[in-house]
Amino acid sequence: MAERAALEELVRLQGERVRGLKQQKASAEQIEEEVAKLLKLKAQLGPDEGKQKFVLKTPKETLTGKYGEDSKLIYDLKDQGGELLSLRYDLTVPFARYLAMNKLTNIKRYHIAKVYRRDNPAMTRGRYREFYQCDFDIAGQFDPMIPDAECLKIMCEILSSLQIGDFLVKVNDRRILDGMFAICGVPDSKFRTICSSVDKLDKVSWEEVKNEMVGEKGLAPKVADRIGDYVQQHGGVSLVEQLLQDPELSQNKQALEGLGDLKILFEYLTLFGIADKISFDLSLARGLDYYTGVIYEAVLLQTPVRAGEEPLGVGSVAAGGRYDGLVGMFDPKGRKVPCVGLSIGVERIFSIVEQRLEALEEKVRTTETQVLVASAQKKLLEERLRLVSELWDAGIKAELLYKKNPKLLNQLQYCEEAGIPLVVIIGEQELKDGVIKLRSVASREEVDVRREDLVEEIKRRTSQPFCIC
Amino acid sequence: MAERAALEELVRLQGERVRGLKQQKASAEQIEEEVAKLLKLKAQLGPDEGKQKFVLKTPKETLTGKYGEDSKLIYDLKDQGGELLSLRYDLTVPFARYLAMNKLTNIKRYHIAKVYRRDNPAMTRGRYREFYQCDFDIAGQFDPMIPDAECLKIMCEILSSLQIGDFLVKVNDRRILDGMFAICGVPDSKFRTICSSVDKLDKVSWEEVKNEMVGEKGLAPKVADRIGDYVQQHGGVSLVEQLLQDPELSQNKQALEGLGDLKILFEYLTLFGIADKISFDLSLARGLDYYTGVIYEAVLLQTPVRAGEEPLGVGSVAAGGRYDGLVGMFDPKGRKVPCVGLSIGVERIFSIVEQRLEALEEKVRTTETQVLVASAQKKLLEERLRLVSELWDAGIKAELLYKKNPKLLNQLQYCEEAGIPLVVIIGEQELKDGVIKLRSVASREEVDVRREDLVEEIKRRTSQPFCIC
Repeated sequence: MAERAALEELVRLQGERVRGLKQQKASAEQIEEEVAKLLKLKAQLGPDEGKQKFVLKTPKETLTGKYGEDSKLIYDLKDQGGELLSLRYDLTVPFARYLAMNKLTNIKRYHIAKVYRRDNPAMTRGRYREFYQCDFDIAGQFDPMIPDAECLKIMCEILSSLQIGDFLVKVNDRRILDGMFAICGVPDSKFRTICSSVDKLDKVSWEEVKNEMVGEKGLAPKVADRIGDYVQQHGGVSLVEQLLQDPELSQNKQALEGLGDLKILFEYLTLFGIADKISFDLSLARGLDYYTGVIYEAVLLQTPVRAGEEPLGVGSVAAGGRYDGLVGMFDPKGRKVPCVGLSIGVERIFSIVEQRLEALEEKVRTTETQVLVASAQKKLLEERLRLVSELWDAGIKAELLYKKNPKLLNQLQYCEEAGIPLVVIIGEQELKDGVIKLRSVASREEVDVRREDLVEEIKRRTSQPFCIC
Repeated sequence: MAERAALEELVRLQGERVRGLKQQKASAEQIEEEVAKLLKLKAQLGPDEGKQKFVLKTPKETLTGKYGEDSKLIYDLKDQGGELLSLRYDLTVPFARYLAMNKLTNIKRYHIAKVYRRDNPAMTRGRYREFYQCDFDIAGQFDPMIPDAECLKIMCEILSSLQIGDFLVKVNDRRILDGMFAICGVPDSKFRTICSSVDKLDKVSWEEVKNEMVGEKGLAPKVADRIGDYVQQHGGVSLVEQLLQDPELSQNKQALEGLGDLKILFEYLTLFGIADKISFDLSLARGLDYYTGVIYEAVLLQTPVRAGEEPLGVGSVAAGGRYDGLVGMFDPKGRKVPCVGLSIGVERIFSIVEQRLEALEEKVRTTETQVLVASAQKKLLEERLRLVSELWDAGIKAELLYKKNPKLLNQLQYCEEAGIPLVVIIGEQELKDGVIKLRSVASREEVDVRREDLVEEIKRRTSQPFCIC
């Protein structure tokens, strides 16, 4: 320990030395030299407290009691220490744990990573057991609905920029649901499980949901019917206004808070120019336990097959909401950090984009190669290597066939298959003349370009931004 | 099964219908309508063979016998079916398995993902048990050394473009090592284990390596000394030439092949303009079993602390080589697919970049925000939301404080802390005049910009490309 203290002191002194030299505008070499020493010392110091946090494991207990009836989908595993572990179910709970462990009270970040669910896969709909989620979250104590509105704006920006057709974002609030359950006469103990039943309304009819509530979950039919009257409503801000006048709902403190916030939210979404994409939908419940306020879910609208037909939802591609209690669950002193965020289902969206392109028979390019470096005769590999290297160094996406003496026809065919728009052709005569043949694969036009102008000419022709689809 | 066949037939017919309509240049609505039907049918068809492969698990057996003495670092886990699984140790073996399973004989790809090693972590040097690797591989039957040279070119491009100082790429060939072991009199059974000893020469002295060979691994001292004479040599293509003349080594078929290929490789690397970064180093062995040909490893060179001092290697940041037998191990018929590739240690490089920046006391920005939308007085939240949305829609990276009435001072301080270069300030007077104040945080200069010119002015000022460091 005394050793470590000494080392730390050395690091501190060496750091001061570097600062001093910089203030004195010492030579780059001299500073570099002192920096090198400093790095050596720091390396000897080894890991410090803060950094070790990053290798803390996530025991199963972290995941329990966060996902309600979805918990059965969590993957359990045993590590070599015999400890029961789980593969992460989403990126939200790990994010909350991270905030609590590192005592962060204020952060905005996105995170793209794999999550695991022990579900029945459906490849064609992009549902896998191991899949990517892209999460965006805003954590911190802020004025109402401002971060929430930004999350919805981002969700709409992302979905609009993808070629997946029209979409709708359903919005609701857990406090409105709880308030509604309360005034309808649902016992507190049944709130969460009734919530999961309501959540199924996007897939099954009200009758089936009612049967589950009454038959399986022992709700009185009268209570279920009262819920039915509410959850079958959806609309815009006008529905919010209407419910604020609802004689019973407006008497419930929670519901009133939720409705008040939704009113502010719609204001902000109008300023963000996305109010037309949003539908206040009382049947939206979201299965997960950790939501505490506004919740939302984006569904794609399939173009009606017959005119006049209602647009048909083809399932959720993004969802999220406010979870103000989750970080507190991981904090020893229960300190709360309000959070709001969203998750995008990456594979889900990819599969939709791919299917649309397939159906339209648009070829999906798998590379961004702009130009193939080809040769017209044999014994030109060295020239091809020299040129492709020049193009790479100039930031041009170039390729060549890994053959010593490829046939020109094969090189041109490769461009057709790979969708490479340009090909430069090196020939003996052209080498003598100091030119290169530049050929457009689509039009098959060829022009001789002076070697020194080639990079500029290729850049000019490929200046259009490249599209992943 | 008959059902599925019928469905497939329907999909085929509907596909033809879509094609037909497109040939007849039918209306977009009409095509869209048929495409919608086609998608519905395809959804009913469900997953097909090809796609199911993606969810196949990777049982431990896949990993055994691929990593030599490093195998002890593999993480073992049990899944819910009780099957013994492992967390992937690298991205190379999974890549080879993927090629074999999908019968791919020709592919070039990069892959950034996490791998797991049950090693002793060293945070300050960026060594974790869970860490990212970035792999690039070229698989396929090609003419000698062309893909290998491209891999080394890419490795040098990546390392040169990072702020991690000077580096050197050590190159060797497994066939040269095996040939050398053979002529030195190492028994075949000891090739791999002696290989691992040689590989330690970058960390410990020859004496210690010799002791391990003789003491632990039972090699005759004479044999060890002969190995020592070879493995302590390193140089450029001239060393290749010299060894091609070596009376004994040149008699060994394997060594001769390896040296011949290295000669070609140096030719290509010269054409790629990176030969000066490459050192043929007979002590480079690489621990892993699966390499069959050329192997390489990039080490950073620390600036000498005293002039005239040998540059000191601070460890490997990237490595790779040729593995022609690995795919065959996973193919039922043992069909081989020659592969060559490289891995970049992402955290390793990050930690070096961060330490250099810390030592130089350059602040690392954690966001790319170009402009903060601020207000000079109260009651301007709506204006801030409207403006930030305008900037977002114009592709400008903008932020605002999530407060209804933030103090101007706090908003300016936030810019200083977050390193945001520009701030636009909305004020009541400016709103009346149809202008916005644009302030440079560094110089504190302020100008009034006409609202309609704001986007252009911000783009003009932020046109310089953004740097991650």
